[in-house]
Amino acid sequence: MAEPLTPTQLAHWRTFIESSWALHTRLEDELRAATGLSMNDYHVLVALADAPGRRIRMGELATRLWLSPSRITYQVTSMIKRGLVRKENCSDDGRGQEAVLTDLGVRTLREAAPAHLATVRESFIDHLDDEELAVIGRVFAKVRGK
Amino acid sequence: MAEPLTPTQLAHWRTFIESSWALHTRLEDELRAATGLSMNDYHVLVALADAPGRRIRMGELATRLWLSPSRITYQVTSMIKRGLVRKENCSDDGRGQEAVLTDLGVRTLREAAPAHLATVRESFIDHLDDEELAVIGRVFAKVRGK
Repeated sequence: MAEPLTPTQLAHWRTFIESSWALHTRLEDELRAATGLSMNDYHVLVALADAPGRRIRMGELATRLWLSPSRITYQVTSMIKRGLVRKENCSDDGRGQEAVLTDLGVRTLREAAPAHLATVRESFIDHLDDEELAVIGRVFAKVRGK
Repeated sequence: MAEPLTPTQLAHWRTFIESSWALHTRLEDELRAATGLSMNDYHVLVALADAPGRRIRMGELATRLWLSPSRITYQVTSMIKRGLVRKENCSDDGRGQEAVLTDLGVRTLREAAPAHLATVRESFIDHLDDEELAVIGRVFAKVRGK
């Protein structure tokens, strides 16, 4: 077992985990109330909207969103049922499947984004100066990278 | 509507939200697999273990954990069923109710903490230097404070 956290590490960790958990809960609750979308729905829509051809291989989508294979399958199946996404065979080699954003998915994201990002600004961005935000970006890129 | 996020703000925000979401998912999955506890279970156990008399008023517990009244009721009811917590009338004025940590709750937390905190160290703390961790602590105290 690794050595235990110092009291300072533990205090900062608790502040972070409780506060970020609350932030996620608030974002999810407000997004669901306004649009019916979960945060995972929203992240899938954003990832696909940014991708060339609005399509991403299932495995790559799972990696991008750090979802397990079973979670990404469940997630995409749910979005297919709602018409936001469809599955197609991979365009390049015909092996494997891609998730493709539908026109309804594009419209849904376009309608959901302004209010969601206003909540993001009000509940997070507006509390940070530029330097703090840069540290957050750097730290969480490292955390994600492993 | 507030002005939209700048590209830099949006990029840092996406890195943060996707990475921290993945971190929460990993912590929740590993905690559940090892102990059967959810992260909310764990946070309730920690909050009660730190409190005088190992008891906190329901309303204060909801505020501490940023859970809505319906969420905290559901959460505590579930923990009562598992014997981790019990409810008692408030000791000072007899009005309202307190959540009280049981002996089983104490033991459960004691058994769960080392492996959970090892995951915390490995997936988060070890990636940060002292200054970055201090910024994280400061930023998320501000975010929580609102």
